[in-house]
Amino acid sequence: MFATYPPAGLARRTESLSSSAIRDLLALTARDDVISLAGGLPATDLIPIDRIAAAAEAVLRTPDAVQYCETAGHRTLREVIAARESVERGGVSVPTDTVVVTHGSQQALTLLAQALIDPGAVVVVDEPAYTGALQVFSIAEARIEAVPITETGMDTDELDRRLTAGLRPTLVHTVANFHNPRGVTMSEQRRRHLAALADRYGFWVVEDDPYGEICFAATDPADGRGTPPPPIACFGDRVIRLSSASKILAPTLRVGWFVAPPAVCAAVELLKQGADLCGSSMTQLMTADMLGDTGWLAVHLGTLRREYACRATALTDALDAEFAGLLTVSRPTGGMFAWATFEDGTDTTALLQVALQHGVAFVPGTAFGSDSRYRHSLRLSFAGSTPTVLADAVRRLGAAHSASARGL
Amino acid sequence: MFATYPPAGLARRTESLSSSAIRDLLALTARDDVISLAGGLPATDLIPIDRIAAAAEAVLRTPDAVQYCETAGHRTLREVIAARESVERGGVSVPTDTVVVTHGSQQALTLLAQALIDPGAVVVVDEPAYTGALQVFSIAEARIEAVPITETGMDTDELDRRLTAGLRPTLVHTVANFHNPRGVTMSEQRRRHLAALADRYGFWVVEDDPYGEICFAATDPADGRGTPPPPIACFGDRVIRLSSASKILAPTLRVGWFVAPPAVCAAVELLKQGADLCGSSMTQLMTADMLGDTGWLAVHLGTLRREYACRATALTDALDAEFAGLLTVSRPTGGMFAWATFEDGTDTTALLQVALQHGVAFVPGTAFGSDSRYRHSLRLSFAGSTPTVLADAVRRLGAAHSASARGL
Repeated sequence: MFATYPPAGLARRTESLSSSAIRDLLALTARDDVISLAGGLPATDLIPIDRIAAAAEAVLRTPDAVQYCETAGHRTLREVIAARESVERGGVSVPTDTVVVTHGSQQALTLLAQALIDPGAVVVVDEPAYTGALQVFSIAEARIEAVPITETGMDTDELDRRLTAGLRPTLVHTVANFHNPRGVTMSEQRRRHLAALADRYGFWVVEDDPYGEICFAATDPADGRGTPPPPIACFGDRVIRLSSASKILAPTLRVGWFVAPPAVCAAVELLKQGADLCGSSMTQLMTADMLGDTGWLAVHLGTLRREYACRATALTDALDAEFAGLLTVSRPTGGMFAWATFEDGTDTTALLQVALQHGVAFVPGTAFGSDSRYRHSLRLSFAGSTPTVLADAVRRLGAAHSASARGL
Repeated sequence: MFATYPPAGLARRTESLSSSAIRDLLALTARDDVISLAGGLPATDLIPIDRIAAAAEAVLRTPDAVQYCETAGHRTLREVIAARESVERGGVSVPTDTVVVTHGSQQALTLLAQALIDPGAVVVVDEPAYTGALQVFSIAEARIEAVPITETGMDTDELDRRLTAGLRPTLVHTVANFHNPRGVTMSEQRRRHLAALADRYGFWVVEDDPYGEICFAATDPADGRGTPPPPIACFGDRVIRLSSASKILAPTLRVGWFVAPPAVCAAVELLKQGADLCGSSMTQLMTADMLGDTGWLAVHLGTLRREYACRATALTDALDAEFAGLLTVSRPTGGMFAWATFEDGTDTTALLQVALQHGVAFVPGTAFGSDSRYRHSLRLSFAGSTPTVLADAVRRLGAAHSASARGL
């Protein structure tokens, strides 16, 4: 139907865009014969579909649920989020007007980048980093500066040194809880340090927190493992905190949000008006219905934490058994991912090709940053598979590693 | 909770953004004592809320409806849209891969602007123009060139003259069916002319069509009034056609779409991946369910057309009776808006202030373009009010006009 057009038909910045590594991988792993530990999808079998259907039925009784919505989000949902955020921050009042609802937290990242970043501005990210954030900052034409993730989160001492040496970022993005892909949680000391640096040097901190509520400790309060420290936002005013309903309720709601100073909210609201007018009042009211049903939510989150903890253990135990000392594996205390590093020089990008032939997929470390150290690392999602399937996946990975080592 | 930040905390382009005139007006008209003919909302009482609830119930039975969705849209919906678009184009095959689903057609506009427009590029718009499009092109830092709307749509002869004189637009945006705000429909001759100009000069045509299916003729086939000519896309390859479920089903679905050459679809898909990952599989499957239910849809669209026709007549008859020869009023043949122009020199921006005191709102002509001719014009939406309410609104407008003329 269409002729082929010369590249001149697209804008300059579009020509340089390329598909993300994760996206291309996901395309490869959609095959039925591949067990994918590559994706960032929450467990489909744990999405509360019946409760979602009940929420739809409950909200689709008033015209309010079918018309256009306020651009900043339906007030009912913003109030529920503000109240939850207030609890999260130890009771500090969080005004409703400081909450903006977005189309997933990916849209929050995009609109914040548009609102805060001029082309050429410096943006500090984790190394390794969430690839969706890298993509957003690259579309915003930011100069990206990566600061290593340690066992206690972003290395704020290193950031401090670079700031002293003259680095002047507009924004620092970090996943402080159950880091994607590293799995670690930022310590309270580093949180305080980062907030203090933001105040001293005048940059924004974007505290991206999709996984904070999937903390395994809640399944075993005596353990204490997994309970994250207070949000970075508790320690400073220049912190914009993002979260989402995608991982705790369902991606289909397309509901994310952020809490930020009013000037930032106002700027994003104007940008969102241009971007897509508003979100869906139906899915926002459904989200408010479920997040506001605290009794049900506590039970649901309990199930999610228990199941994810069980899957995490199944994966890491199987990896330890399969690879003995060849693979160093993180011990997830929450979230959806384990991070592993081969000690025998295995290149994980090369391994992936063989692994796909053996029917298992993961994301090679190099997808998350340019540091050559990540050549030997890989991210594995334990969220989407039952323990039995995870055990099978690890056997396949072992076979792929053996074949790869034999040069097959 | 938050300190006040210096403007340096926002990106440069954000500082220059301001809220749209329509948006500020809508805020004013949210008062209960004001009958608003200002908004672009479809009639709330005609939104098929029971059918929407049934669609939600039907789709929320499979996990497919609650997970992440393909970025370009759920294939089931893309197939339904491609099939409908094929019928719209007289049976020409429209491949599913040329359809991209977006978060309302406003997001389609935004992503297309990002994909196709470099800062400083020339974009031709209607004069008067859809304000949402003006906002998108202004955020994209386009140089906006306005070409007048005539009784037969955009004045392509004038465009032709400007092209001959050296104008080189990247993109021409027009609402060809039941124009917002002018109400007119582009003739087939002008459609062919525009498509031919696009081929000759190598620009994109964005054919923005949210209202095409709200054509009053269908209520009276003998009349023929209101049936639009074939889409501009039938006459050339450089046409990107946009539409939406917002006006025919419900805004809450946040489902829009466009049909474009594969290279454009691929670029927008990458941008959408960065912008918000994907749409809602739930609302997309619900939309597919309703658009695919052709028997029900025909009855629903019939109701919508009949009611809107009735409301349009009620509004324009009342305006004629109230203002006699003082006001020239368009005769809508579809869509949601009437366009009227005072012949007595009334400035509609000044009139609006008085009208609000009298409990009625509209959008002054100057909101849609810079031409000083529009000072005496106004856009009135007949969609959202019953004939009785419309008659009341017109009486209030008459009183406001009298008060305004007496200098009160």
